[in-house]
Amino acid sequence: MKKILCLSLLLAFQKLATAQNFKKDSTTMKEMSNYILSNYECYNDLRYLCKQIGHRISGSPQAAKAVEWGKSVLEKTGCDRVYLQEVMVPHWVRGEEEAAIINEKGHRSKVVISSMGNAVGTGAKGIEAQLLKINNIEQLQRMNPKDVKGKIVFFNYRFNQTNINTFESYGPCVYYRWGAPSEAAKMGAAAVVIRSVSSAFDDKPHTGSISYNNKYPSIPSVAISNLAADQLEKLLVTEPHSKMYIRTMCEMLPDVKSYNVIGEITGSEIPNEIICFGGHLDSWDIGEGAHDDGAGVVQSIEVLRTFAKLGIRPKRTIRAILFMNEENGLKGGQKYAELAGQNNENHILAIETDAGGATPFGFSMSMSAAKRNKVKSWLPLFLPYGIYSFQREGGGADIGPLQRKFGTPVMGLLPDSQRYFDMHHSENDVFENVHRRELCLGSVAMTLMVYMVSMYGL
Amino acid sequence: MKKILCLSLLLAFQKLATAQNFKKDSTTMKEMSNYILSNYECYNDLRYLCKQIGHRISGSPQAAKAVEWGKSVLEKTGCDRVYLQEVMVPHWVRGEEEAAIINEKGHRSKVVISSMGNAVGTGAKGIEAQLLKINNIEQLQRMNPKDVKGKIVFFNYRFNQTNINTFESYGPCVYYRWGAPSEAAKMGAAAVVIRSVSSAFDDKPHTGSISYNNKYPSIPSVAISNLAADQLEKLLVTEPHSKMYIRTMCEMLPDVKSYNVIGEITGSEIPNEIICFGGHLDSWDIGEGAHDDGAGVVQSIEVLRTFAKLGIRPKRTIRAILFMNEENGLKGGQKYAELAGQNNENHILAIETDAGGATPFGFSMSMSAAKRNKVKSWLPLFLPYGIYSFQREGGGADIGPLQRKFGTPVMGLLPDSQRYFDMHHSENDVFENVHRRELCLGSVAMTLMVYMVSMYGL
Repeated sequence: MKKILCLSLLLAFQKLATAQNFKKDSTTMKEMSNYILSNYECYNDLRYLCKQIGHRISGSPQAAKAVEWGKSVLEKTGCDRVYLQEVMVPHWVRGEEEAAIINEKGHRSKVVISSMGNAVGTGAKGIEAQLLKINNIEQLQRMNPKDVKGKIVFFNYRFNQTNINTFESYGPCVYYRWGAPSEAAKMGAAAVVIRSVSSAFDDKPHTGSISYNNKYPSIPSVAISNLAADQLEKLLVTEPHSKMYIRTMCEMLPDVKSYNVIGEITGSEIPNEIICFGGHLDSWDIGEGAHDDGAGVVQSIEVLRTFAKLGIRPKRTIRAILFMNEENGLKGGQKYAELAGQNNENHILAIETDAGGATPFGFSMSMSAAKRNKVKSWLPLFLPYGIYSFQREGGGADIGPLQRKFGTPVMGLLPDSQRYFDMHHSENDVFENVHRRELCLGSVAMTLMVYMVSMYGL
Repeated sequence: MKKILCLSLLLAFQKLATAQNFKKDSTTMKEMSNYILSNYECYNDLRYLCKQIGHRISGSPQAAKAVEWGKSVLEKTGCDRVYLQEVMVPHWVRGEEEAAIINEKGHRSKVVISSMGNAVGTGAKGIEAQLLKINNIEQLQRMNPKDVKGKIVFFNYRFNQTNINTFESYGPCVYYRWGAPSEAAKMGAAAVVIRSVSSAFDDKPHTGSISYNNKYPSIPSVAISNLAADQLEKLLVTEPHSKMYIRTMCEMLPDVKSYNVIGEITGSEIPNEIICFGGHLDSWDIGEGAHDDGAGVVQSIEVLRTFAKLGIRPKRTIRAILFMNEENGLKGGQKYAELAGQNNENHILAIETDAGGATPFGFSMSMSAAKRNKVKSWLPLFLPYGIYSFQREGGGADIGPLQRKFGTPVMGLLPDSQRYFDMHHSENDVFENVHRRELCLGSVAMTLMVYMVSMYGL
């Protein structure tokens, strides 16, 4: 009986403590949200990064400027410590690029192209060859190699508009940018042109990384816009022997010394437990890298700023990382994990924000069921901010090495994905296409999650 | 024992039937969603409405064109029946409007204004008077009327940026547009200028209805943009005796005959149970009424089109209503309810979509707890479409009369509200600011809800 009474009392106290915590946490979270939405410094940071520095591919002078900028902005947040992590990164340069479609009568019409990042160029003379439309990889694999040899393969694989989550449509398309060109090379193709990996029906080509299979020749590979692809598709119905001319002067230069930029606030009670979070500082070399991933960079900075400015001391160490070279090498993410290992650091959670600056609705997670359930128990605290989804699997590219090396629990911020692939890796990805309040809500979601884990662990 | 066995069997059958229904419904819903996202006819409809007809205030020639267009588009959906409901509507016209701020040295600088809809004009000579900045209604009420008399009251009430749901910030601001001008008139003010009810920090004034209290004189009332209001606020600190000149030639003309436009598909099993849904065809006379409420109009049309094109027969009657005169009179909504009464119609649900064309996340509802719980039990069917919130109270303006007159259960589509009040009632509300996929997801959400209620009642 005594035991039961004690247990009942204990449970009652626990319940009371939980209720008190809930009220206190919910008040702190609202203060954090109010601070971010009233001051929207992340939005002003993004304006500077996009408009004063601009796009910033790894190894470029702008990437170096972005490192300096990131360090200086982090220092001004009032966090405890800001430092750089040296990392060697690839330095791919686009150079001139031009192309034309040549119909069966020999008429040439110019078409805007964007070379795949890390791709080889055509050389100064360019390549002119007959086009071969291929709708999917199975169709290519059924071809006789002699019918592919010397041709420019046009991968006409479409973005599936029926998925609600556009990342589900992105995945299958990316294969045609990343891996399929080597399959065409294997069959003797001279070059590849792909339908842009884009949800928009517009005239902007989208770039993105290619990965060559070393067993086959590295061949030039470029994207054309969805509108241009539609026109090309029609032309090839009536004039199947049309040709394409492609001249791309892109090349890979020697590696360059660059940096991850890191800021942190030391935990007041359990400093050796680290919660890290970040986006990537590099971007593609067209557009301004506003959604991808200027948004993630400024949101990560905003987390530290909000803690510092409001004087909220995390119990555990919280660390913002502006990763270098996510787009075409992942060297920053790899270096970070390597050093975390060397320094015996204990990361209890890594969060990535690299899915654009739109209104967030949740976090993807890869972690044990127990940890996921702990996060799910916080749902009532997140619902007032429109954050309801803790179901999806996933983390992020930059924190992947940490996860794979040490089994670190990971999360990814999930913003609404409807507009993202209209802009991603294209000239559409500019500051004007990021909305102030939406961007801030991403900062809010990140800050609240970091707050909860910094208080209660994981 | 026999009884228990029977009951167990019955429950097992019910469970099986529910599971089978779930599978069947979920398949049908996915077909509907795929149809809408692949064909995006609602988006093309919106382009026509915005670009070929443009803004369409009640009583205007464009509103008449919009009625013809709505009828013709509904007829082409393949629904069973399309008809018009005659309704007399107010006909307010803006006419010329100009204004200037005059500092203490007498220097005049022009400022862009937008008269409140339904407001009186200043007459051809305009009004020039000293400005009196009032931050909120309490401050006005504490004033001595002799300090207000003859002045132009500047209501400098700000949109609260800290609310996550921007409609919560809209509400309090609207008072300064709708009701507060008469409070200023009561104290002898010559005119009112308000800070636009807008979440944007830009140079566009936002219009919207005014409601005069007949006990006091009707005085001119105009909005200036947030940027202009910021400048004016600063000026009045250093030069508190600055004046404003306002000339507005707006006036209310005689009522005009107009129409609600209605399309329906007759229920195959319970045709006398009606599910109606709609948006409003009229808009303000600036911008293009794209989000407000072209989006709701084309989404409502899309519901019928999707049923008709896929050959899905609803068990109950489903009816799309393009209401006239939501913005400055609500005559269409009132007429609809009046005729529903005369015809003894049984509306089991009315849904409004009039909160913009952004990505939807839920439905607000005003109905009994039992009905709300029935809808909530469908949550697993809606989650794949990002629809998770069935908590909020509310319906919509056009279906308000139906709700008040007959206690009809009502719902309102809830799109993400972050960008809405940047555009609402301003020149920013144009087709280019509506995103194809986001608009379509609103159509999907509406279609799925209408489908479920048409199958299972409420």
